[in-house]
Amino acid sequence: MNILITNDDGIYADGIIELAKSISKIANVYVVAPESQRSATGHAITIHSPIMVHKIDMGENIKSYAISGTPADCVKVGIEGLFKDINIDLVLSGINNGSNLGTDVIYSGTVSAALEGFILNKPSIAISYDEVNVKREIYKDASKYVVNLVENIKDKLDLLNDCILNVNIPNTKIKGSKITKLGQRNYDNAMVEKINPFGQKYYWIGGKLMELDQDEDSDIACVKDGYISITPINIEMTNLRKFELLKDIKMI
Amino acid sequence: MNILITNDDGIYADGIIELAKSISKIANVYVVAPESQRSATGHAITIHSPIMVHKIDMGENIKSYAISGTPADCVKVGIEGLFKDINIDLVLSGINNGSNLGTDVIYSGTVSAALEGFILNKPSIAISYDEVNVKREIYKDASKYVVNLVENIKDKLDLLNDCILNVNIPNTKIKGSKITKLGQRNYDNAMVEKINPFGQKYYWIGGKLMELDQDEDSDIACVKDGYISITPINIEMTNLRKFELLKDIKMI
Repeated sequence: MNILITNDDGIYADGIIELAKSISKIANVYVVAPESQRSATGHAITIHSPIMVHKIDMGENIKSYAISGTPADCVKVGIEGLFKDINIDLVLSGINNGSNLGTDVIYSGTVSAALEGFILNKPSIAISYDEVNVKREIYKDASKYVVNLVENIKDKLDLLNDCILNVNIPNTKIKGSKITKLGQRNYDNAMVEKINPFGQKYYWIGGKLMELDQDEDSDIACVKDGYISITPINIEMTNLRKFELLKDIKMI
Repeated sequence: MNILITNDDGIYADGIIELAKSISKIANVYVVAPESQRSATGHAITIHSPIMVHKIDMGENIKSYAISGTPADCVKVGIEGLFKDINIDLVLSGINNGSNLGTDVIYSGTVSAALEGFILNKPSIAISYDEVNVKREIYKDASKYVVNLVENIKDKLDLLNDCILNVNIPNTKIKGSKITKLGQRNYDNAMVEKINPFGQKYYWIGGKLMELDQDEDSDIACVKDGYISITPINIEMTNLRKFELLKDIKMI
């Protein structure tokens, strides 16, 4: 198999290094990742400036490039640029420093990179770990589950023809894995207002996660309960329920 | 009504200036827009740096700020920061320089700003014009349709409790408006490879729109046919069809 690996924490993040090493034992690995931290960039792509590329040494058997773009750019540059002569079988994005659950996915560079793989007709999986700034060994252990998933799904990649998988690995003793739905996440007091040394007002987005009731089959409940969450998601965003109700809305 | 207006082309773009002027005749207008061009930034938010704010004069009766952040940041800063004491009734994002149809919406800063309004529990509408770099008068004319829409929907804002509206206005004689689904858009030869004056390789995302077959009730077919397209969209991205088929996929 030829597997393209990317992330949003940047090419020097422990999560992508351990994932690439583990996956390189079962597949040819091609890495294209942002040259620096690009989390929360959503599905941004770079169209108003060039995207620079730099070859990086990530060890034997791993072809690796850092680029000046976003996570979604990495997948575009990998599939349509740097590795356009390779038949990429699967795109992996991660392992992310922190979970991407529920409403988070809309902001997540990790998930957006996998969705870009999907848009380019490649089976794609996003992987996140439900704790931030953990030791490198943790990602090594977590990568074993990703290897299991790849081995398990490699002969059934058609399952990913109308969705990606969004995987979140809990930071506890793991009981198993479950197929889940996106839950609801909201942040309280998200906007912090301050004054800089020059007397100018600025804002910094922060905020504390609110405890909301979750459906039992949601990704959030699943991870909390000690199971790896696997959520099939896609970009069919039309709300069909509203068609009939909206029919009297006119603009002319 | 109190209406927050934003965009992704930046605060000096003709589309937002004409929209703000037209809407200020029927509502109190609050503008928060990026200080420069931020298109194709998707749902990126700024969490690794502060967001600076600058007061801008957009004329009488319009309270207006430019910020150093993304379109989604603008809505967060507007609702949770600068205008947190105002009860914002509606968020408008646009009028965008160019259409946001089908698959485009996942990359669109214009649409993401409206989706951020939705996440913050505000009725929200994204508006795009299906031609780039048109004369300012065109946006003035297009704004009349948006005024019609606001007048038409203002007593039925509950319709927007589980979706936003993504509006695209065609660049032809307009026959009417229709409720539509997202169509399919793909770009051919999207990745241009070049060498810079220092001998370094870079990529630039470009590409030509491919002509794909579209459903009759898609946004793309609608605009092509001379109707204003109104698509209800949201962020319920879970693919429920795949639940049963995926149940044998295990990671442990």
